[in-house]
Amino acid sequence: MQQTICALATGTGGAVALVRLSGPEVCRILQELTKHAGVPDPRRQTLCSIYDGEEILDKALITYFQAPHSFTGEDVAEFALHASPYIKGRLLELLCERGAVMARRGEFSERAFLNGKMDLVEAEGLCDLIASCNKAAHKLAMDSLGGKLSERLAEIKRRLSELLAQIEVRLDDVDEEMTPLSDKFVQGEMNAVLGHIKALADTFSVGKYIKDGLKTAIVGAPNSGKSSLLNALVGFDRAIVSDQSGTTRDTVEEILEINGQKIILTDTAGIREHALDPAEKEGMRRSHRAMEAADLILFVLDSSRSLTLEEKELWRDIRRQNKRTVIVWNKKDLAAQQPPLEEQEKYPSAAVSCKTGDGLNALKTLITADVTEAQTADGLMISNLRHYQSLLRAQTELESALIRLQAQAGGEIYAEHLRGALRYLQDLIGEVTPDDVLGIIFSKFCMGK
Amino acid sequence: MQQTICALATGTGGAVALVRLSGPEVCRILQELTKHAGVPDPRRQTLCSIYDGEEILDKALITYFQAPHSFTGEDVAEFALHASPYIKGRLLELLCERGAVMARRGEFSERAFLNGKMDLVEAEGLCDLIASCNKAAHKLAMDSLGGKLSERLAEIKRRLSELLAQIEVRLDDVDEEMTPLSDKFVQGEMNAVLGHIKALADTFSVGKYIKDGLKTAIVGAPNSGKSSLLNALVGFDRAIVSDQSGTTRDTVEEILEINGQKIILTDTAGIREHALDPAEKEGMRRSHRAMEAADLILFVLDSSRSLTLEEKELWRDIRRQNKRTVIVWNKKDLAAQQPPLEEQEKYPSAAVSCKTGDGLNALKTLITADVTEAQTADGLMISNLRHYQSLLRAQTELESALIRLQAQAGGEIYAEHLRGALRYLQDLIGEVTPDDVLGIIFSKFCMGK
Repeated sequence: MQQTICALATGTGGAVALVRLSGPEVCRILQELTKHAGVPDPRRQTLCSIYDGEEILDKALITYFQAPHSFTGEDVAEFALHASPYIKGRLLELLCERGAVMARRGEFSERAFLNGKMDLVEAEGLCDLIASCNKAAHKLAMDSLGGKLSERLAEIKRRLSELLAQIEVRLDDVDEEMTPLSDKFVQGEMNAVLGHIKALADTFSVGKYIKDGLKTAIVGAPNSGKSSLLNALVGFDRAIVSDQSGTTRDTVEEILEINGQKIILTDTAGIREHALDPAEKEGMRRSHRAMEAADLILFVLDSSRSLTLEEKELWRDIRRQNKRTVIVWNKKDLAAQQPPLEEQEKYPSAAVSCKTGDGLNALKTLITADVTEAQTADGLMISNLRHYQSLLRAQTELESALIRLQAQAGGEIYAEHLRGALRYLQDLIGEVTPDDVLGIIFSKFCMGK
Repeated sequence: MQQTICALATGTGGAVALVRLSGPEVCRILQELTKHAGVPDPRRQTLCSIYDGEEILDKALITYFQAPHSFTGEDVAEFALHASPYIKGRLLELLCERGAVMARRGEFSERAFLNGKMDLVEAEGLCDLIASCNKAAHKLAMDSLGGKLSERLAEIKRRLSELLAQIEVRLDDVDEEMTPLSDKFVQGEMNAVLGHIKALADTFSVGKYIKDGLKTAIVGAPNSGKSSLLNALVGFDRAIVSDQSGTTRDTVEEILEINGQKIILTDTAGIREHALDPAEKEGMRRSHRAMEAADLILFVLDSSRSLTLEEKELWRDIRRQNKRTVIVWNKKDLAAQQPPLEEQEKYPSAAVSCKTGDGLNALKTLITADVTEAQTADGLMISNLRHYQSLLRAQTELESALIRLQAQAGGEIYAEHLRGALRYLQDLIGEVTPDDVLGIIFSKFCMGK
C-alpha cells in the first residue's frame, strides 16, 4: 500500500505557496481538514477553510485531481495558500498528523513514472526543464519532456527489436523451415540502427554544454587584453549575475549568457601578474589547466604587434589540445594589419576592439556557433550523461555484433550482442531500470516535483 | 479603462511557479497564448500549451476566474508553471507583449479593495498574514483578514453614526418640534463609544509585539550570567535561525520563538568586557539604550551572592523605566536563598539555572505572559500603527466632544468633534482614505498579491 505524500512545491517567499498531496488517503485527509464530507469536484479550484482544530489556519484555493487523471496518476490535492512561513509549516504538520509523510525529492515524478504517466527520459526532461535558465536549455528540456526524444528512442528500439525477433525466430527454427536472413540484410539493419544511435550520441558534446554551459577559457599573453575581453563580454551581457569561485584560487568563473546560451568563462587573466613566480612557467601551467577543462578556447592576441616567442609556443600548445578554438585579434583599432600566425586559416577568428566594442558581436556569434548550427538542424539532442552512457554502451554492443557477423560467427553469438544493445536502450527509457538506479535518478529532482 | 496587470506570485526556486493576470484583457490574452478560442470554464484547472510563437513555452495548468468572482473582482487567470527561471521570465514578457503591464506591489489587493472585495483592514490583514511566522501573529492577521476586526469597527462606527444622526436632526430642527436629547443620554453614548475605542487602542501595546516581536533586553552586571541566559534561551528554542546586526556595533539581536511568540533578544552581554572604557559608565549607557528600546526587561542577578552597589543603582534605573520587568535569579543551583532586593515583591521573578536548564520554562511563561493573557480574553487586537493612530485620533475627538458637552457648549460644537471621530473611523476601514495614502499602504504588500 502506497503512502500518501506531501510537500511544498513552491519556493521561498512570494505571496502564494502551493502544497501538494498525493496518494490513496487524499480524499479522507481533505475531508478532515476542510470539515467537508463528500468527494470534491475534480480540477475545480474551490475556496475552502483549512481547519487546525477549531481555528481556521487559512482560506485556501484547493484543487482535487482524481486518479488516474493527475500528475502522479494517484489522487492528488493542491493547496494554494497564503505564503506565510507559519501557514506553510503548519499545514505540512497537519497533513502528517493525519497520516501523510513528507515526500522525498522527486517522489511525485517517480510515482508518475511508476504509474506510466511518463517514461524516464520524459521525467528527466521535466527535471531539466525546471532548472532551465535560457532558451537553448529550455528547448532541450522541452524536447525531452514533450516526448520527442522518447519517440526517437522508441523508433530505434523498435527497429532493433524487429531485427532481433527475425534472428531469434530462426534460431528456434531447428527444422530450418524458414528462409535464412542474408548477412547483407542483417548487416544493413545493424548499421542503420548503429547510425541512429551514433547520431544521437554525437549530439551530447553540444547538448551537454547547452544544459550545463559552455566552458570557455580565455588564454593569451599578458597585455594581450584578456581582462579587457572578459570585461567586455561580461559587462554587456551580464544576464546571469553570479560570481562563482573556481576550484583553484587562481581562476575565477564568470557565468553569462550569450545568444541565449550559458557560457562559463574561465578567467586566467592576471595569472602572469605573479611577478614572484619564475616568469611564464607558472602562467603556462595554469593556462594549460584551464584549456584542459574547456569546451572552447579563446586565444587572445594583440594585433598591433608581432607575436612573441612565448605566444608562438602557447599557440602550438593550444593546437595540440585539439579543441574548438577561436583566435581573437584584439586592439583592432590600433592595428592596420594583423601579424602572421601559423595555420591561422584553419581556425575561425574575430578582430575586436574591447575599447570601442567593435567586432564583439561577431565574436559572440563564433562562440555560440556550434549551438546555433546544432539547433538549425532537426534539433533533437541529448544532454544527460546517463543517456549518453547508455547510448555508448548500446553502440559498443552493436559494433561487437557487426564484428561477429563479419567474422562469420553464428547467429547465437551476435544475437547476444543485439540483446545487450536492446537492454541498454530499454534501460535508457526506464523499462528495465533497477529500483536503486531509479532512486538515484529521482533524488536529483527538486522537492515537491 | 483599467490596465491588465501581471506578476509572479510565488517565490524563488521550487518546482511550481504561479503567474497571475488580472484585468479586462485576460480572456483575449489567454486565447492568444493558448491558441484556444472561446471563454475557458471558470475555476477549472486545465492543462494547456502556452505558445511562444510556434514553439511551446510550457504545458501549464491554467485557471480562469470570471469577474466578479475572483480575488480582484476582475477577470483573473492563474498559470501554474514549471518553475524554470527561463519560463517564468519569458511568460511575463509574452504577457507584456500582448498588452499586460507588470503589477506594482500590492496592486492585486488594491484592486480587490477598490472593487469592494475587502475593506482596508481586511486587506492589511492579508499582508500581515503572508508575513506571519508564528501562531500568535497568524491569529492576529486572521482576525483582521477574516473581518472580525472590521466587524467590531463597524459596530463602533454605527453607534457613533446613530448618535450623530440624532444630534444633527435636532440641529436642523429650527422649529424645535423634536424632543431634545438629554445631556445624560448623549454623554452615556459618547462614553460607550469612547470605551470601545480605548479598549481596542489599548491592545496595540501587545498586538504590535505579537506582530513585530517582543523586544527584550537582558540587563545585569558582568558575571551575573547574561550571556549564559541568552545562550540558554536561544540554544533550546532557536526556532528562527537568524542573526541580525543591531543598529549599533555593540548590541546584537537574536530572534527566537518562545511559546509561539516572536522574541527579539537584545544582547547587551559582553558590553562590560571593554576593559578600556572607564569601568561601568559605558556599560551603563548601553544598557540604558537597550532598555529604552525594549518592551520587556530581564534583570539578571547572581543569586549566590549579595547585590553590588552598581547592581542596586541599576535596579533603581530599571524601575524608573516603568516597563514590564522580570527579575531573573540566576545560578539557582549554587544558592540556598536569594539575597534581598528592594521592592522585589512588585515584580514577577524566576529562579533559574542556565547550567542545568532548571526554571527556564517558568521564565519563558513569564516572558510571554502578556500575550498569553491577551489571547485568553476575547482576543481581538490591533497591531498596525495606522490603525492605532486612527483610533487615538478618534479617541481625542471624542474626549474633546465630552469636554465641550460638560462645558455646556452647544450641539454644533460637540457635533463637529463627533464628525471628526467618525471620519477617523471611516479612514481606518478605507471609506474616505485618500488615493495617495492608499498607494503607500499597498506599496508595503508583497509582489503578486
